[in-house]
Amino acid sequence: MENKEVKNVSQKTIVWHKTSVSKQDRQALNGHKSCILWFTGLSGSGKSTLANALARALHEQKVRTYVLDGDNIRHGLNKDLGFSPQDRVENIRRIGEVAKLFVDAGIMTLTAFISPYRADREQVRALVEEGEFIEVYVKCPLSECEQRDPKGLYKRARAGEIPHFTGISAPYEEPENPELIIETDRVSVEEAVEQLIRYLKDRQMIP
Amino acid sequence: MENKEVKNVSQKTIVWHKTSVSKQDRQALNGHKSCILWFTGLSGSGKSTLANALARALHEQKVRTYVLDGDNIRHGLNKDLGFSPQDRVENIRRIGEVAKLFVDAGIMTLTAFISPYRADREQVRALVEEGEFIEVYVKCPLSECEQRDPKGLYKRARAGEIPHFTGISAPYEEPENPELIIETDRVSVEEAVEQLIRYLKDRQMIP
Repeated sequence: MENKEVKNVSQKTIVWHKTSVSKQDRQALNGHKSCILWFTGLSGSGKSTLANALARALHEQKVRTYVLDGDNIRHGLNKDLGFSPQDRVENIRRIGEVAKLFVDAGIMTLTAFISPYRADREQVRALVEEGEFIEVYVKCPLSECEQRDPKGLYKRARAGEIPHFTGISAPYEEPENPELIIETDRVSVEEAVEQLIRYLKDRQMIP
Repeated sequence: MENKEVKNVSQKTIVWHKTSVSKQDRQALNGHKSCILWFTGLSGSGKSTLANALARALHEQKVRTYVLDGDNIRHGLNKDLGFSPQDRVENIRRIGEVAKLFVDAGIMTLTAFISPYRADREQVRALVEEGEFIEVYVKCPLSECEQRDPKGLYKRARAGEIPHFTGISAPYEEPENPELIIETDRVSVEEAVEQLIRYLKDRQMIP
């Protein structure tokens, strides 16, 4: 935000120069840039695992991080939303707006949501500045995700118990030009984290 | 979050101990606690001015801060909401959920919204842990707010151009037991900031 001239709230109305703390001020204090690392992929592809592993590795390097995922969003901010196509759009819209606030706050923001629609992801990209949206496609064959099935969701979806389940009864639109692709059936978590950190260092997002 | 045992996403499924970064980890890295400073009061009472002045003063002391206010919420996350009683409730609910995420992220979170309903503010208080919600009543007589009228809103409200305007055509429910009261027709911004910082220091929220 720019400097603004505001009225002093005391009785003697004197001109008082307010300088709001800016994103740049916060990045300078933190010693690193802030951006959104948007992990997208099928259920069971490894988004949360990767996001949390990266956040831990960055935190050890004194980078301020935050992970937005189903755990802290679906039971809170978006607890009024379901999984219909319409609600999924609103779900991602709100997450994008919150991620933007976190970037403005100087935080390296990691999001882990299936986010199956290309248009929704592009809408988030458009919310922030050039280079602040890093789309990470967590790529894994459906068969492998279904075999992992960590929460037993695929089994329930196949049984028809979960409507609109991505990959089974709802579409997943693959990213066309993601900044990064992590094939989780081929690389380990450690290798993936290294790849992500290298990406951030190369672009001088972190020291 | 607790430690969780998760599957390695590599082909060789080995057990991999994930330790998510916790609020406590982030507070330790930042060197201060995180909480919500919830500024409430009439339009024109000085909420934004105080919140921004406090954020600036805290930032100078290397405290990580973020201000949530109409500027960054009404045009983003809550741009689908109006000013009807129902939308005001949802407005504050979402802001509370976002503020909770910021507290979890280790950020000293300042909010500047009229937030006229007592029940809504108490709902936010209930979202976070004991001591993490600091209600700051920015108290100023309606007559004084109306005289200041920095955005010309009272004039428009009196002319009937703005429906549901707090203090004119919609109620403001005063806080019953706010942690702090700042009477902005009696103290200067500087004095108020000092009072707020003293409060945080006394409770060892900041060094």
